[in-house]
Amino acid sequence: MSASVIDLRSDTVTRPTPAMLEAMFQARVGDDVYEEDPTVRALEQEAAARFGLEAGLFCPSGTMTNQIAIKAHTEPLSEVICEQTSHIYLWEVGGIAFHSGASVALLPGERGRLTAAQVEAAIRPQNVHYPTTSLISLENTHNRGGGSCYHLPELAAIADVAQRHQIPLHLDGARIFNALVATGQDAREYGRLFDTISVCLSKGLGAPVGSVLLGSQAFIQKTKRIRKVMGGGMRQAGYLAAAGLYALEHNVDRLQDDHRRARQLRDTLQTQPYVAEVLPVETNLVIFRLHESMPAESFLARLEAQGIRASSFGPQFIRFVTHLDIDDAMVARIGAALQQLAA
Amino acid sequence: MSASVIDLRSDTVTRPTPAMLEAMFQARVGDDVYEEDPTVRALEQEAAARFGLEAGLFCPSGTMTNQIAIKAHTEPLSEVICEQTSHIYLWEVGGIAFHSGASVALLPGERGRLTAAQVEAAIRPQNVHYPTTSLISLENTHNRGGGSCYHLPELAAIADVAQRHQIPLHLDGARIFNALVATGQDAREYGRLFDTISVCLSKGLGAPVGSVLLGSQAFIQKTKRIRKVMGGGMRQAGYLAAAGLYALEHNVDRLQDDHRRARQLRDTLQTQPYVAEVLPVETNLVIFRLHESMPAESFLARLEAQGIRASSFGPQFIRFVTHLDIDDAMVARIGAALQQLAA
Amino acid sequence: MSASVIDLRSDTVTRPTPAMLEAMFQARVGDDVYEEDPTVRALEQEAAARFGLEAGLFCPSGTMTNQIAIKAHTEPLSEVICEQTSHIYLWEVGGIAFHSGASVALLPGERGRLTAAQVEAAIRPQNVHYPTTSLISLENTHNRGGGSCYHLPELAAIADVAQRHQIPLHLDGARIFNALVATGQDAREYGRLFDTISVCLSKGLGAPVGSVLLGSQAFIQKTKRIRKVMGGGMRQAGYLAAAGLYALEHNVDRLQDDHRRARQLRDTLQTQPYVAEVLPVETNLVIFRLHESMPAESFLARLEAQGIRASSFGPQFIRFVTHLDIDDAMVARIGAALQQLAA
Amino acid sequence: MSASVIDLRSDTVTRPTPAMLEAMFQARVGDDVYEEDPTVRALEQEAAARFGLEAGLFCPSGTMTNQIAIKAHTEPLSEVICEQTSHIYLWEVGGIAFHSGASVALLPGERGRLTAAQVEAAIRPQNVHYPTTSLISLENTHNRGGGSCYHLPELAAIADVAQRHQIPLHLDGARIFNALVATGQDAREYGRLFDTISVCLSKGLGAPVGSVLLGSQAFIQKTKRIRKVMGGGMRQAGYLAAAGLYALEHNVDRLQDDHRRARQLRDTLQTQPYVAEVLPVETNLVIFRLHESMPAESFLARLEAQGIRASSFGPQFIRFVTHLDIDDAMVARIGAALQQLAA
Repeated sequence: MSASVIDLRSDTVTRPTPAMLEAMFQARVGDDVYEEDPTVRALEQEAAARFGLEAGLFCPSGTMTNQIAIKAHTEPLSEVICEQTSHIYLWEVGGIAFHSGASVALLPGERGRLTAAQVEAAIRPQNVHYPTTSLISLENTHNRGGGSCYHLPELAAIADVAQRHQIPLHLDGARIFNALVATGQDAREYGRLFDTISVCLSKGLGAPVGSVLLGSQAFIQKTKRIRKVMGGGMRQAGYLAAAGLYALEHNVDRLQDDHRRARQLRDTLQTQPYVAEVLPVETNLVIFRLHESMPAESFLARLEAQGIRASSFGPQFIRFVTHLDIDDAMVARIGAALQQLAA
Repeated sequence: MSASVIDLRSDTVTRPTPAMLEAMFQARVGDDVYEEDPTVRALEQEAAARFGLEAGLFCPSGTMTNQIAIKAHTEPLSEVICEQTSHIYLWEVGGIAFHSGASVALLPGERGRLTAAQVEAAIRPQNVHYPTTSLISLENTHNRGGGSCYHLPELAAIADVAQRHQIPLHLDGARIFNALVATGQDAREYGRLFDTISVCLSKGLGAPVGSVLLGSQAFIQKTKRIRKVMGGGMRQAGYLAAAGLYALEHNVDRLQDDHRRARQLRDTLQTQPYVAEVLPVETNLVIFRLHESMPAESFLARLEAQGIRASSFGPQFIRFVTHLDIDDAMVARIGAALQQLAA
Repeated sequence: MSASVIDLRSDTVTRPTPAMLEAMFQARVGDDVYEEDPTVRALEQEAAARFGLEAGLFCPSGTMTNQIAIKAHTEPLSEVICEQTSHIYLWEVGGIAFHSGASVALLPGERGRLTAAQVEAAIRPQNVHYPTTSLISLENTHNRGGGSCYHLPELAAIADVAQRHQIPLHLDGARIFNALVATGQDAREYGRLFDTISVCLSKGLGAPVGSVLLGSQAFIQKTKRIRKVMGGGMRQAGYLAAAGLYALEHNVDRLQDDHRRARQLRDTLQTQPYVAEVLPVETNLVIFRLHESMPAESFLARLEAQGIRASSFGPQFIRFVTHLDIDDAMVARIGAALQQLAA
Repeated sequence: MSASVIDLRSDTVTRPTPAMLEAMFQARVGDDVYEEDPTVRALEQEAAARFGLEAGLFCPSGTMTNQIAIKAHTEPLSEVICEQTSHIYLWEVGGIAFHSGASVALLPGERGRLTAAQVEAAIRPQNVHYPTTSLISLENTHNRGGGSCYHLPELAAIADVAQRHQIPLHLDGARIFNALVATGQDAREYGRLFDTISVCLSKGLGAPVGSVLLGSQAFIQKTKRIRKVMGGGMRQAGYLAAAGLYALEHNVDRLQDDHRRARQLRDTLQTQPYVAEVLPVETNLVIFRLHESMPAESFLARLEAQGIRASSFGPQFIRFVTHLDIDDAMVARIGAALQQLAA
């Protein structure tokens, strides 16, 4: 992709800055299958500490951290409660069934957000015909909901349901730092409410590869064999972990810039005649619906012709994602291109 | 249960009539694992012939015929499209995930009935993040929909979607004979539209045990190893199959009596002050919602005190099922009991 | 199969005697999915009582009782220790992997019998690369071992290994009554040594269909959902259970007749020039190896021409099985046919 | 681990040389989930070209490449033929059952090497009781066999069996370059004989992380969803791939130094009084058995006290592995330490 291309498809496309790259190649490494990589260890501890949890497990992707968590929490003949457009159900290749042999109870959220009442009603009663509810999984920010953020009281209410029913509560926190920065919530609140959290380093944080699964010491110990069987046991992974450590240090606060730029894009989009609706913008995702007179494919092709890449998100829906590699000049260029499309 | 108890919980509770028992007692049998039981063979052929399909597989339950069909049609990393309250998803212990490692696309039907447009929209596009849609499964009559029946044109439209996308189409026909009798549809139409059909013998048909899975010769051949691994390979199963053969011969037309009695119960229920709503009655299932002033548990307890058993079906919903062991005198007795509850 | 055919292929081919059939059709039945079939309940209790165990679960086959037990004892990422020719591994369609996602540690037994030392050496140490040993499963009599019987002291030693390592111990007792009758061992000893026992009713005992899984109340309770998902939840199964009850009452002691006839066949075989080796005969299985000059297929074809059916059992090995439908006259007829083959 | 420690536990413990690190640092990267990382693409193509195969798939570990291959080749109710001590069975956490629901046929090899006759005899005939043989998997060099190498004619004979039975043939080539260098075989011969090959970059080749799965275009296309569900879809993975490319260029021929040093260690070991037996040394693995008077744990502890780490490999067996970070001076130091142990 040439340097002049603006890539709004995802915050996964970022490339390390020179400073991050420098941190990577200074990393001290070891064989992490033997648990001897000091940089991996440091990242796992730092990420856990941020959320007030005991331990972490570094993995090559967020799909792996989510699927490992689901596998470790559930067993076959059980069921996972999640939102009907959640990433773990919709974009992880049916991994809940594949890895865990578990059923899903799919609930319709308000832009991806569930309520405690919904969750409680979905818990299966004891009956020989039913799987056992074994996990409640939330996603924050919620991707398909347009980067929407949960309010803490609702999360606390859901956590209360989970505890009363003795069902573990997992957070797909692929973009949890976007939520924290946007709402001002405290990461340690999440550690108190959730049993396990999956944190992604290669989205808004800008690291090239990796996610960390957080939980108790006992839980993380249990996950190591699952990571191994899934092929996530890496050797000198410290080079990747170093980028994650750098990102936690330097790339969290700056997410507010991404959010500001997302709002700017929203403002431009709202005034375009071919845009039917823009979902509320809370973080770095801008999801909008095109009028039928502007087919999604043609919209994307015309943007691409101007060096701007984005992706469709269901029929007539488009998603723009702001990130580390999108600066103010680019936002201006995107604004101009959007105006021009109206002409 | 004493002879005077009226059991409306399910049409599975029927016991063989003396004539059916006599047919069982006279059955010629052999070792069906060696494919040498003549009565099992006769039942499989008779059931297949009724639907214009090539072959049948006798199994100990409808859960097994459904789950075998799903397993044979799918592979891990694929997805099954079905209604969100369908039996295969809701009451088979999460078997789709357990046996087949397959994901589910759950659609909201109108009393359990899907449209071709809904089904087509749920087919997953090619994408590395998605499972592959590998099966469309319908249920007719639809249990949770209150024994609702599909219209043939809609089934034909769904079959057309399936064929255009080269996705097999399965029918959970646990109560297909109720649908056939209620609508006057021709069984052989179903054989033309569906790749496989699961037919239950131990519900309205009154046999003690068993279901038959119907399909092509090649498909049924493939299912034999699946039945074996699931533990459904029985030896001298002809005693059970004989009851099924008897039921196909003698107990199909009489389902209209069950339907008439179901409508009578509906009429009585509709005039009761404690009943908020009765779902349309098309076959032998009567589902109704109680007013909040009449809690479901107390309703059931008061009925039971009068020797009538029924079951709840979600909060405040009750299901009555008419069947071979419910006669006109019993319907009158139930009517009287329902009136008395209002007093 | 005409009445004059002698079927030595398996003890599964027996057909009920008139008295057993009479017991079946006198059975009181109910819907066993609602746990209301009194005859099923009686069989489960009687079988459990014989072995001094608490509870039983009636299933349509021994493959189902074994596979349910394995599923209930294990979880994915664990391993089952068993003999390398055991039925659960070799003849149940790879069900250990299919249903339970569990690995197998396959040990070479002496005619199918393992030693405590072998079992203990196969228990996997704690290591992130290894599955966890979750079950030890034995088979008695051992089919592939030629109906061989374990000595109680060896079983006690294996049970001691299991207890010290807190690993459950399962018995595939498809032919456990043959072992009990042949050795004079007490069934209740088995209940003391094994956590669970699978007992088959449709082999030597002569019932048409069914097996019972025995264990503690808590264990059997846990298995009910597994039986349901596998499709083993039958309705008025009491007709089959009645045959099992009859068999427990009337067909156990007579197994010594089968054993005597098996020894008679062994004696005849040992003097035939085309027989290279006869495995020791302890119960009702006679396994022998043919000289290369007598190909197995031709041997079977020539027997079949005389109205005698048997089956091959690996290259050049033949298995004869005596059972309820093989009487002394038939043994004489088989002897004559074997002599004639030598001519 | 301090710089002065000599680590013979595995060839996975190597750390990149400055030149390899420089190559990583210079890598051009992109989002590999979008298939836009040029360095990953280059590595996949280079590795495939070496073996004359069409395409490659970069993954974070050799366990993942093996398990993906097994999953893609098999389906549930099938069986994989492999050696009883092969890595895919023994050290991948029972992944064959876990991921693929497949059974295993475990054959005893001569130091891990199977013969065509063994393989052919293990193919299951068609029978409702059997899984279908769906894959033959070999390992070369064979780890548990002490780094033993197959002769090409035997591989060709096994490939012939595979082709005649239309069963795919997979190679676990974790240390295939050791075999190629030791025997002078041509990599492209392997591409002709095997359908798929798993090649490891982080063992003898010295890259920090990664393996490549090689096969046809169609096969590799099919594996992408499997890698995704397993969590192996990485983003800017080019940094790791660059190390792999460097390793292919610079670290293959030098494996003969590792082999020479392994032979030197063997020579020293053979003269030690506490060594009962040294397995033949063909590549970089030295496996030896200690006399009972020298318990393995005490041997390892005494070595460790001298700054030398190794690992046990079954009771009384020890494995030494030579690799990029073991030089001649270290071999001399190890030799001295071994002599001293005898004193």
